[in-house]
Amino acid sequence: MRHLLDTQTLAREDALRILDVAEDMADTQQREIKKLPTLRGKTVVNLFFEDSTRTRISFEAAAKRLSADVINFSAKGSSVSKGESLQDTAQTLQAMGADAVVIRHGASGAPRTLATSGWISAGVVNAGDGTHEHPTQALLDAFTIRKRRFGDASRGRDLAGVKVTIVGDILHSRVARSNVWLLDALGAEVTLVAPPTLVPQDVSGWPVRVLYDLDEAIAAGPDALMMLRIQLERMGAAYFPTEREYSRRWGLDPLRLRALGADSIVMHPGPMNRGLEISAEAADSPRSTVLEQVTNGVSVRMAALYLLLAGADDPTTEIAKETTR
Amino acid sequence: MRHLLDTQTLAREDALRILDVAEDMADTQQREIKKLPTLRGKTVVNLFFEDSTRTRISFEAAAKRLSADVINFSAKGSSVSKGESLQDTAQTLQAMGADAVVIRHGASGAPRTLATSGWISAGVVNAGDGTHEHPTQALLDAFTIRKRRFGDASRGRDLAGVKVTIVGDILHSRVARSNVWLLDALGAEVTLVAPPTLVPQDVSGWPVRVLYDLDEAIAAGPDALMMLRIQLERMGAAYFPTEREYSRRWGLDPLRLRALGADSIVMHPGPMNRGLEISAEAADSPRSTVLEQVTNGVSVRMAALYLLLAGADDPTTEIAKETTR
Amino acid sequence: MRHLLDTQTLAREDALRILDVAEDMADTQQREIKKLPTLRGKTVVNLFFEDSTRTRISFEAAAKRLSADVINFSAKGSSVSKGESLQDTAQTLQAMGADAVVIRHGASGAPRTLATSGWISAGVVNAGDGTHEHPTQALLDAFTIRKRRFGDASRGRDLAGVKVTIVGDILHSRVARSNVWLLDALGAEVTLVAPPTLVPQDVSGWPVRVLYDLDEAIAAGPDALMMLRIQLERMGAAYFPTEREYSRRWGLDPLRLRALGADSIVMHPGPMNRGLEISAEAADSPRSTVLEQVTNGVSVRMAALYLLLAGADDPTTEIAKETTR
Repeated sequence: MRHLLDTQTLAREDALRILDVAEDMADTQQREIKKLPTLRGKTVVNLFFEDSTRTRISFEAAAKRLSADVINFSAKGSSVSKGESLQDTAQTLQAMGADAVVIRHGASGAPRTLATSGWISAGVVNAGDGTHEHPTQALLDAFTIRKRRFGDASRGRDLAGVKVTIVGDILHSRVARSNVWLLDALGAEVTLVAPPTLVPQDVSGWPVRVLYDLDEAIAAGPDALMMLRIQLERMGAAYFPTEREYSRRWGLDPLRLRALGADSIVMHPGPMNRGLEISAEAADSPRSTVLEQVTNGVSVRMAALYLLLAGADDPTTEIAKETTR
Repeated sequence: MRHLLDTQTLAREDALRILDVAEDMADTQQREIKKLPTLRGKTVVNLFFEDSTRTRISFEAAAKRLSADVINFSAKGSSVSKGESLQDTAQTLQAMGADAVVIRHGASGAPRTLATSGWISAGVVNAGDGTHEHPTQALLDAFTIRKRRFGDASRGRDLAGVKVTIVGDILHSRVARSNVWLLDALGAEVTLVAPPTLVPQDVSGWPVRVLYDLDEAIAAGPDALMMLRIQLERMGAAYFPTEREYSRRWGLDPLRLRALGADSIVMHPGPMNRGLEISAEAADSPRSTVLEQVTNGVSVRMAALYLLLAGADDPTTEIAKETTR
Repeated sequence: MRHLLDTQTLAREDALRILDVAEDMADTQQREIKKLPTLRGKTVVNLFFEDSTRTRISFEAAAKRLSADVINFSAKGSSVSKGESLQDTAQTLQAMGADAVVIRHGASGAPRTLATSGWISAGVVNAGDGTHEHPTQALLDAFTIRKRRFGDASRGRDLAGVKVTIVGDILHSRVARSNVWLLDALGAEVTLVAPPTLVPQDVSGWPVRVLYDLDEAIAAGPDALMMLRIQLERMGAAYFPTEREYSRRWGLDPLRLRALGADSIVMHPGPMNRGLEISAEAADSPRSTVLEQVTNGVSVRMAALYLLLAGADDPTTEIAKETTR
């Protein structure tokens, strides 16, 4: 793997490889081997044109556990936030020795431009671009579903037949898009639930079923119910009447929580608006995978950085070797 | 020790233990063994809801010298600065692998809430909460007094009979509160000097003597005179007439400096308002421990992180072992 | 070397030593030995009173590759940005264990004050002060010229007879000043080209020739043409008519690029205003050393930190030893 730009063009076998390496990473973390020497001497730059403390910290923790040097470059508000200088910024970072650039950008497609323009040879990881994609989020979500379902027997498995329902602002959500493509590639059956105003116009071309009624979707017995964050700052009366109305119709309240099947899980990419798209009872219930998703996010990002930068033919062997030293 | 939340409930023996381990840490620093491998693989998160570059840097330096990974999370201005999400923020940090959370928060009691709510299992260190406490500041102050008094023979000793006078804005000062409880636990005799408007209403319940006249307090022969920083942005005409008036009546000017006993020291938590609560002559005099306090702050914070995270039964032995490798 | 404050008082042999050690550093980077253990346990503080992400990141990368701990202290906007507390800030940083302070300050002379005031004993590196100097920029520029000219045979050589032409806002440019003194010390012949309003009044005392016509300067056949960044926020009608006029008369457009001699190079300290002082064709041409300058900047800063902090008599031997382990 040279880059991780999206899930739409990510091959099924590459996705499974990331998930399997992430299993190895999670193992080392659990065995209290928190620091791997794998990326010693490599430099990972977090190039964030938008604020996102959570995602930045998750990549930073992942890189540091692999012993990479991490340089945080918050481009927001600086002169480099002007689109025209993305080339110069990226080339400068690489000239300083960046081996990988983790980029969060407001413009859909910026990571791909960076990776394919010929400007740099460093590996590029998309950490969220506009309303386009957020591939590591989808990978950590898939990892979490797989882990809950298959436990220690997860390696090598896909999500064939698993029913995943994504609820909320699909229109603006890069998390939803990345999940749709990845889940489809892994064989899952995806249902989207949203107010009609928050469904993208081109959804007819997506490998999904669309519903507008959350109760109907829950009655269909999803294995995983993924609640998206409502970003109130982007919302207006054009999208739905009121917060209260949204919460009543598309929020996961205690009643709906209890209507879920015995084994189904509740997911949320965080940060949660408790009481809006998800009730505290749902957020803190044993069904909730919210914190597992965060933990798994570090493992998945370790795996992505590892595969981009270490480039080993057989990563699992190498990790095993290193961790048994 | 699981957490370090305050000095009011800190047992005398735990306080002494921190001070003694801090002696070991100071020794390693002096012997130019600046990097200890003790906390390799541990992650310390600095979760700062208020700006405090000095305190943050001191904890960062302490953690790095113990080989921990440090992640700085400035929550100020971000969405997590809203009180209701402290739980989610903390749980997220722990899910990412935080072993200790160093928290600075504007609300008194926030660190205790974090530590006792059951939300997280990571160790919590209070780096200043509202007007409540700033325990590592008091510990470094006690360390500094002890070191000046007993030198290399400091280990195991308390401050029985040592006379400490704290001068300034007691009302708003978490530094004063933490010092009062700790100094009392260690057997010191504490006097507070302040304008009447800057003395807390509940001071009658504190183990201190209160004076309003700095000259009277100096005449009593304190071993340590601790000048608090006046935070002008919080002050108004309600508290004292003018800066000039404050400086004249409660500032440590050259005349008062010379009135101090031969062995008494001058302390200040920094940053100093030279010319207001402390004159340049006092700040730069050999009596001044201002810079020793800063140096000792790193040792004390190393000790606190060590005791929270390494959890050894006999830390001094282990450090000795590590540093003689 | 105790400090690196300017190039005006930097001895020729010290400058050559930095350049030669930087060659060693560049070698280790090229041989994929990215991490040297040389400064393990040393703490480098980046004390930036002005924003400069590029320079800060370059120093940070340099320090981390030498295994130093790096603490970033952005003083902008904080209470320490007031001039009167530079002493206290610096002393505090040293008391926390800073071995070197890399300072960027808006006031010309601040680094020298810091280094010579007796306040601290840590090494001081000037990372840009007012309109005074930016010595590591000049050193990396000299390194780049030498490397392009002599390749692997660069060590020990100066720039005798090399013709360097610096174009742009000389008046406000610390980069220009540092280059003038260093290039002169190394034996180069320096020509300045600028609008008359952007030539300093005291230029008659500088070891340079001054021209106002870029085409005339290019016709003279410079070996290196260094285009300075126009900082539009500082410019006004007082300095030149319009951007378009500036670009037409003093910008390196494709026509002028083609008028350069076969071996002459085009330099720019970055970030570039493409289309203003430099055309895209010039910026991306094989003559352009813009990215080499960035790469060399890390090597030169590694060399400076090494010479200040490791203080070895024979650094090249030591590096060789370390890198062959």
